[in-house]
Amino acid sequence: MQRILNNPDNIVDEMLKGFLKTHSDIVEATENPRVVKAKGVPADRVGVVTGGGSGHKPAFVGYVGENLCDAAAVGEIFSSPTAAAFLDAFKVANSGKGVACLYGNYSGDNMNVKMAVKMAKKAGIEVKTVIANDDVASAPKDQREKRRGVAGEILMWKAAGAKAATGASLDEVIATAQKAIDNTRSVGIGLTPCTLPAVGHPNFEIKEGTMEVGIGHHGEPGVAVCALEPAAQMAKRMVDIVVPDYPFEAGDEVVVLVSGLGATPVMELYVLYDEIDKLLTEKGIKTHRAYVGNYFTSLDMMGATLTVMKLDEELKTLMDAPCYSMGLKQK
Amino acid sequence: MQRILNNPDNIVDEMLKGFLKTHSDIVEATENPRVVKAKGVPADRVGVVTGGGSGHKPAFVGYVGENLCDAAAVGEIFSSPTAAAFLDAFKVANSGKGVACLYGNYSGDNMNVKMAVKMAKKAGIEVKTVIANDDVASAPKDQREKRRGVAGEILMWKAAGAKAATGASLDEVIATAQKAIDNTRSVGIGLTPCTLPAVGHPNFEIKEGTMEVGIGHHGEPGVAVCALEPAAQMAKRMVDIVVPDYPFEAGDEVVVLVSGLGATPVMELYVLYDEIDKLLTEKGIKTHRAYVGNYFTSLDMMGATLTVMKLDEELKTLMDAPCYSMGLKQK
Repeated sequence: MQRILNNPDNIVDEMLKGFLKTHSDIVEATENPRVVKAKGVPADRVGVVTGGGSGHKPAFVGYVGENLCDAAAVGEIFSSPTAAAFLDAFKVANSGKGVACLYGNYSGDNMNVKMAVKMAKKAGIEVKTVIANDDVASAPKDQREKRRGVAGEILMWKAAGAKAATGASLDEVIATAQKAIDNTRSVGIGLTPCTLPAVGHPNFEIKEGTMEVGIGHHGEPGVAVCALEPAAQMAKRMVDIVVPDYPFEAGDEVVVLVSGLGATPVMELYVLYDEIDKLLTEKGIKTHRAYVGNYFTSLDMMGATLTVMKLDEELKTLMDAPCYSMGLKQK
Repeated sequence: MQRILNNPDNIVDEMLKGFLKTHSDIVEATENPRVVKAKGVPADRVGVVTGGGSGHKPAFVGYVGENLCDAAAVGEIFSSPTAAAFLDAFKVANSGKGVACLYGNYSGDNMNVKMAVKMAKKAGIEVKTVIANDDVASAPKDQREKRRGVAGEILMWKAAGAKAATGASLDEVIATAQKAIDNTRSVGIGLTPCTLPAVGHPNFEIKEGTMEVGIGHHGEPGVAVCALEPAAQMAKRMVDIVVPDYPFEAGDEVVVLVSGLGATPVMELYVLYDEIDKLLTEKGIKTHRAYVGNYFTSLDMMGATLTVMKLDEELKTLMDAPCYSMGLKQK
């Protein structure tokens, strides 16, 4: 394992120290060492909170910042933050106007958020939640409640953070976040597994010359293992999964996000995006804005995810709003 | 080779297509398909141009943007752009006030820039150059002119781009760029080799359990191959090479840039930076601003580079100026 580590058991704490030093203009520590908040928070508006396991940089702490999330609870690598961390994140983000907790559909996160929401209620903090479930390959369409949340979460945070900044009520922020994720579909293709620092070897396998379509961010099995394809065919495969599911149709305006899984060179993500854009254009789907880069990763996994979000006038305005965090800066 | 490719021979053109589509708010194509320029360029000021081989994303096109480079010439993977591409980059960046060409010390780039500068002179465009040579491990201190340019180039572009934006003359922009790189030292540690898409296998070797100290961005040999060390020792090794060379001393204010080489998880870069910051603090060196992330990469190489720049009042102001490109956004 060729990695930059001290004791792998301490990697999350050490990472956070470096992260907080680097981005002291954007974020700050809180009393809970596993909660990071944006500077100037709480502000006199609805708080937006997320959280999740580590190893997905920029997610999750990289989306704490201006017009994005106000605070994030930080878990161990690929593990949910504790209920206590979610609760403390709610506390630091709450100005009295309530908190929108926007997170991904994983059993640990569901359990801990649910407990934290109950504890928050006792403490007099109103928290409402939206659970991201944009990963098409993780369950059939009639069981959307079983689908995982992946890179679509970023677009949900972007929309909800911009909405909260307008002074919207908690119910309004929640409605926007729910619409954002309901309008969003994703799929991933894995080319190599990843290695957890404390384990030291890959925890699943992708054979050289093959790729796993529909893979999850922690190596959850996809819908097909097939021969490694050229970028154009990979793009077609991703588009053919994502587009009919929503379905996105001719005349739709969309945001497209192509994220690397960590170790794929960024130049290859642009090659993939070029192919995706050609396919969407052929279908009469218009890309209003694209994000291409390492936005939601899985340690040193190779591969990419495609996320498409249908815009209406409200979402278009919100996605175009400025924001400033480690992982997403837009003016 | 588990990569996202069509025909590897076309990767640079395909990457540029995706890049230009994604960042149409920042950059635009030019008549030369291997030259990218910032929107609104030429503007009524000195032009700042760079260029280099592909495979180093965000470098080089990712630093074309507001208050950074005005245009970049794009080469094949790990190969210099042509003289014609540099010349065309000068042409699109020139408003009549001359062009500062700021690039890295590699034989191909040196040869092609020299030819392009001559051709530009004939065409009535004044071009002056600064050659980055921040890589300490690539030659002894008394032969700085032989040293390679690595991630320190980014800090040079940042300073020079901000200086040009003030309306400074060509000589002033060149003086600032020269000071920026003279004040800057870098070193890299490689943990894995990288694979060029057209080759299909690594073009050099780093044995599992070892690391190469002083490695170049194309796998150029370093100063030592040693056993893989914990992050704290890696940080010490880097600081012990970079700090005495300039030398950086107690009371100095610096900018620190820790860049991944492509495939190292970003969380590990924060772990490394935390260790580097502790060592600099112990020495009484104050970090005014830090950049940590994948700023100058080598395809899918694992490892990291450390770059330190000493600030004076002018450089501090310039490094704090806003900028907006794919690779560097700062407000």
